[in-house]
Amino acid sequence: MSELSEVSALSELVEKAQKLDAADELRGKRAEFVLDAAPGDPAGPAGVYLDGNSLGALPAHVPEKVADVVRRQWGELRIRSWEESGWWTAPERIGDRIAPLVGAAPGQVVVGDSTSVNVFKALVAAVRMAGEGRDEIVVDATTFPTDGYIAESAARLTGRGLRAVLPDDVPGAVGDRTAAVLLNHVDYRTGRLHDLPRLTAAAHAAGAVAVWDLCHSAGALPVGLDEHGVDLAVGCTYKYLNGGPGAPAFLYVRRDLQDRFDSPLPGWNSHAEPFGMRPEYRPAPGAPRGRVGTPDILSMLALEAALDVWEGVSMEAVRAKSLALTDFFLECVEAYVPPGRVECLTPLRHEERGSQVALRCDDAGDVMKRLIARGVVGDFRPPDVLRFGFTPLYVGFADVERAARVLGETVGA
Amino acid sequence: MSELSEVSALSELVEKAQKLDAADELRGKRAEFVLDAAPGDPAGPAGVYLDGNSLGALPAHVPEKVADVVRRQWGELRIRSWEESGWWTAPERIGDRIAPLVGAAPGQVVVGDSTSVNVFKALVAAVRMAGEGRDEIVVDATTFPTDGYIAESAARLTGRGLRAVLPDDVPGAVGDRTAAVLLNHVDYRTGRLHDLPRLTAAAHAAGAVAVWDLCHSAGALPVGLDEHGVDLAVGCTYKYLNGGPGAPAFLYVRRDLQDRFDSPLPGWNSHAEPFGMRPEYRPAPGAPRGRVGTPDILSMLALEAALDVWEGVSMEAVRAKSLALTDFFLECVEAYVPPGRVECLTPLRHEERGSQVALRCDDAGDVMKRLIARGVVGDFRPPDVLRFGFTPLYVGFADVERAARVLGETVGA
Repeated sequence: MSELSEVSALSELVEKAQKLDAADELRGKRAEFVLDAAPGDPAGPAGVYLDGNSLGALPAHVPEKVADVVRRQWGELRIRSWEESGWWTAPERIGDRIAPLVGAAPGQVVVGDSTSVNVFKALVAAVRMAGEGRDEIVVDATTFPTDGYIAESAARLTGRGLRAVLPDDVPGAVGDRTAAVLLNHVDYRTGRLHDLPRLTAAAHAAGAVAVWDLCHSAGALPVGLDEHGVDLAVGCTYKYLNGGPGAPAFLYVRRDLQDRFDSPLPGWNSHAEPFGMRPEYRPAPGAPRGRVGTPDILSMLALEAALDVWEGVSMEAVRAKSLALTDFFLECVEAYVPPGRVECLTPLRHEERGSQVALRCDDAGDVMKRLIARGVVGDFRPPDVLRFGFTPLYVGFADVERAARVLGETVGA
Repeated sequence: MSELSEVSALSELVEKAQKLDAADELRGKRAEFVLDAAPGDPAGPAGVYLDGNSLGALPAHVPEKVADVVRRQWGELRIRSWEESGWWTAPERIGDRIAPLVGAAPGQVVVGDSTSVNVFKALVAAVRMAGEGRDEIVVDATTFPTDGYIAESAARLTGRGLRAVLPDDVPGAVGDRTAAVLLNHVDYRTGRLHDLPRLTAAAHAAGAVAVWDLCHSAGALPVGLDEHGVDLAVGCTYKYLNGGPGAPAFLYVRRDLQDRFDSPLPGWNSHAEPFGMRPEYRPAPGAPRGRVGTPDILSMLALEAALDVWEGVSMEAVRAKSLALTDFFLECVEAYVPPGRVECLTPLRHEERGSQVALRCDDAGDVMKRLIARGVVGDFRPPDVLRFGFTPLYVGFADVERAARVLGETVGA
């Protein structure tokens, strides 16, 4: 591109960003988050945070809530808070706050433990639901690694085989030996969105239980768990749900399967009568059956407060803006980044795209370091992927333009 | 007791409490905790909190630390905190802070997940260490229920049998079929302290792996994990370690067993190269092998700050004061409570006593409600147990005298 046309592209894209921001129905949400100026680029505008798909930004009202939990609920009420501050029922209460964001009716989602631990619960329970005759677990070959490791453990402990299959190949791979299929809704590396309705139907057609990992879709796009008949799902709350570092994960068990949910981690919190202190285990009905031990209250109540930002937000609006953001980012990258310098790994078709853009380049690790030094924060996934997440609640189009421009300057230099 | 001798006993015990408090070498620690006046008894002195064996009181400096974690580490540094704020290494760093409190050299304790989840990891790993020939898990028949439920699940998933045995009977019950023995160091209900060295030796003599639950002993008395050759141990951090509601539990794996620790929850945080994102699982060496998924940072760093109160404290001093507190409580109960009104379930012999006193009476639930209304907070364990925990760092002898006196007034009325 000539110098003149570069200037023209720049001013056009800056102008377009302004128009898109002005028309953005979610733009008011940005003020609900803490988004300070980034260090490393003091002369520039505020930093651009495109890593909300790894750790969501801080909702501005959360510190005050956490301070109250620590000072008053723990410090003053102490043990009485289990009842008086609603600590005991927090896992299912917060689950019901997450439920509408993933298309679930109340009473089917419970919060607690890490994603990995919930994958374990879900997968062992799925194998048990499928019954003795089915001797194989099918796992997404492109999965975030922890799901694969945990699936291997679940297979070993339940005496099943494990087979890694590309999501596209699942319909042809499942059969009457398949007990459960564990799939990622959005690929953590490429940002590819998989076809949840079609793959769930394929698992069901084979008589298998469909387990979905929603880590990269919960809070980013409509999931429709109930609508599409998903059996079990897990997801994290510290990415697009902004619950805070290591906030507890969630577990969805479809209502009509709850009585058959046979947890491999039957801790006392999942007992029908947890304070009965009985030596015999008798599982609670409903979502609390997915609980295990004492929940981590500080992290959990920070998450509860963080969920307030979803008040009045429709997931359809989030999805529309998410696609507009990633479309615009790709347009800006094309304008600012020298041709051939990066390769887009994220599908261009909307129906195959999550809320992130992954760009491949050989020196991705080094490029991301330089971007971060200039206030554009994405992340690097070895060996060669630049990953940019777009959180519709707080990322604007001017951010997107600036990030692509800084990327162009960084890789062009 | 006549009215006159009642008055005399009262003044003698009040005076004795004053002398004991004056001579208490740990008395300075009390000021490091938040111990406000209890509601419900505005005319009386500050409330007496005897439930630190369920939820420890708030160390006064913790709120400021948590505020910094939320506002600066999460709010400003965001994703960079995994490295810059030491989030990533927190589980093993905090494990090393707990290690000396349970008699472990560094590098053997890791923090994360709930106690129940850690019992599961430890027990399945123990069965795997014991090898194929051993087909039975022995579990404490008086255990806190969650350990029993989880042991049953571990037995089912590893194809072993489960046998409940009274701790005293363990030496005669274990044999060459025993894979692992899971015992509670202190009985949650009665406060009875079990003989860890002797029972560990008995398990070892049978070739079994000894797994200890330290929930009611960690922070209350010397445990001596390394000294007594314990194989695996788990414990909670929100009781005598004052880590906050639902603070993550800890897992100890003796150094020479770490390479054989084969976790049933091999999440990505326990991978030798967690950011390599490899499909094959390869376990990390050392304590991090006990990790699973992303740790709950808010709860974990609150715990880290809370552990500062142990600076300069010897567990021997804690134990000496703990026994003096429970001795004095029993003395005051004898003086103030009508004979036969309550029955002490806690052993009188020091070597069999933890840091709590359990009193049985038919109307225990009702009695505890009335005690709490008067600012004396213990807890009720169904069907008929009043449980009082004595945390030597912040409970004084005047508290003890007052608690027993209010108890006497409550049950005598």
